Amino acid sequence: MTEFRQDAIVGRWVLVRVSDIWPPDRYHAGQAPRGAAISPFIYGREDMTPPEVDAIRPKDTRPDTPGWTVRTVPNKFPALRIEGGLDPRGVGIYDMYNGVGAHEVVIETPDPRKQMADFSVAEVADVIKMYQNRYSSLAKDRRFRYIAIFKNYGESAGASLEHAHSQIIALPILPKYFEEKLQGADRYFSFRGRSIYADILRKEYTDRERIVTENEDFVAFCPYTPRYAFEVSIFPKDTSSNFGGLSDKQRLSLGEILKEVLVRLKQCLNDPSLNYYFNINPVNSEPQENFLWHIDIIPQLFRSAEMEWGTELYVVNTPPDAAARFLREISYTAQV
Amino acid sequence: MTEFRQDAIVGRWVLVRVSDIWPPDRYHAGQAPRGAAISPFIYGREDMTPPEVDAIRPKDTRPDTPGWTVRTVPNKFPALRIEGGLDPRGVGIYDMYNGVGAHEVVIETPDPRKQMADFSVAEVADVIKMYQNRYSSLAKDRRFRYIAIFKNYGESAGASLEHAHSQIIALPILPKYFEEKLQGADRYFSFRGRSIYADILRKEYTDRERIVTENEDFVAFCPYTPRYAFEVSIFPKDTSSNFGGLSDKQRLSLGEILKEVLVRLKQCLNDPSLNYYFNINPVNSEPQENFLWHIDIIPQLFRSAEMEWGTELYVVNTPPDAAARFLREISYTAQV
Repeated sequence: MTEFRQDAIVGRWVLVRVSDIWPPDRYHAGQAPRGAAISPFIYGREDMTPPEVDAIRPKDTRPDTPGWTVRTVPNKFPALRIEGGLDPRGVGIYDMYNGVGAHEVVIETPDPRKQMADFSVAEVADVIKMYQNRYSSLAKDRRFRYIAIFKNYGESAGASLEHAHSQIIALPILPKYFEEKLQGADRYFSFRGRSIYADILRKEYTDRERIVTENEDFVAFCPYTPRYAFEVSIFPKDTSSNFGGLSDKQRLSLGEILKEVLVRLKQCLNDPSLNYYFNINPVNSEPQENFLWHIDIIPQLFRSAEMEWGTELYVVNTPPDAAARFLREISYTAQV
Repeated sequence: MTEFRQDAIVGRWVLVRVSDIWPPDRYHAGQAPRGAAISPFIYGREDMTPPEVDAIRPKDTRPDTPGWTVRTVPNKFPALRIEGGLDPRGVGIYDMYNGVGAHEVVIETPDPRKQMADFSVAEVADVIKMYQNRYSSLAKDRRFRYIAIFKNYGESAGASLEHAHSQIIALPILPKYFEEKLQGADRYFSFRGRSIYADILRKEYTDRERIVTENEDFVAFCPYTPRYAFEVSIFPKDTSSNFGGLSDKQRLSLGEILKEVLVRLKQCLNDPSLNYYFNINPVNSEPQENFLWHIDIIPQLFRSAEMEWGTELYVVNTPPDAAARFLREISYTAQV
């Protein structure tokens, strides 16, 4: 059982386990086991996961049987529980909620040997379709404010299973960094009467040196103020785009550019661990007109974290224009 | 050469290397070398570091010769350069400064086998004395706004050398998380007319369950909203305390409690890697009356970082009351 607790000074939320807590020796047992040597996510093992909440599968197949191409199940070891109320309350000067939320796993393929960089564009688009479905479905639960969609690939990125998967977490709170993004965009708009995202994209088109690749609907670039070397952002070109409403064609465009960026990162950086996450509009909230959804992709590379402690200053040893150039130099042939 | 660049949306500063940049293969060569097998920080090797900027040493010894007990030298591979102007400028919608600052190493002992948990209280107090000296001295440089004082101990904490040392970084910018702390404290004061730090300490004294240890001048506790399991904060009991003005007696008190917390963490968690950092008042700024300086100590333990991506939600598997209890249960005999 967990509790959301809000820092009284800077507003950051943390999730604290208050039952089945970890004693000290749980921490010095080293890394957690990597789980089964054989993937629990392949055809025929559907009963090793909790029952599916959604799947892309032929109409003549039943839930929790083979035949699916993308399958979403509740996390077997969730950090949040789906049942119950939030019971918001103050504890002295702190705000608190019960640790209520959804914690789901998107199994991106039944094939245990394929990773997203190996997928066809249509297969990547199917995963995106699943993200859209879960986003829309979870948004109907009025307790939730934010739907996080993200992928941890490789051990250094926090993945505990190798089989290609991503995660979806529905939260009753708005993460503080996300609230800051919304506020920053609103502040910019009230100062200048323009969308900051439109201005960022305009600067990228003008400078061009940080662009990795683009297609009709999307552009991928290394942001001017990255936190990590070789960080890549993917933005829709239409600044009125909304993630939930992507058309079939736009979804294929997104699949195409996401696959291309993953392949370029893989070849440029020797198949690094990486995380990507969607920045999408909060749900059950006022419309956020100054916000534009996007994807951030972060390879987990060796870096000196010496300075981060005490300064919270990210040191980036490859500037984004050089990173984009290295990524562009990888030869890549578009496929369908 | 590096540049400070400010994110246009959330205000976060990053430091970007723009010359001697790292190409892709620098990242997949694995960990950086651990440096010399023999410490460059022992007596007789003073010429292996840049000339000392300060030292605690007998009056009859010369700089950069043996005899010192604590010695501060510029970092041999600094991320910032001390010379030159900041040259603040806008680049499109972004703010930028040259990467100007001080980056110093405090060698805490000439003994390569001792770590701070093994020091006498007087030896820890000498290190604190050095921190105070550097804080005061660097504050005289009007270019600087924040002096970060922190320690990385062990490989998982980002330490690149085993010899006991800490780091001091003087920055021309205020780290965003620190600015938020100041703003949060001010906001609380304008709402309630009370210091939030006084209220936090009052809550800790009342609840008692999160207190690890205390002495006449300081209290150490596991904060109610930690980011990490077994995180410990040390606060002065006098809410008008300022770090630069600690007396000899208070410095010994601080040495005593810091050593005790380090020993308890070491024994409870099997000598974990850890970071500590000081939160101290900015320099060359308006007085911050609602802020109270303190030290945060973070053991680097195995944890699942699965959820942090995309949610920026810290999951803490040992709640602070239980962590404090485990730490209190370690038997510890105070020494001088």
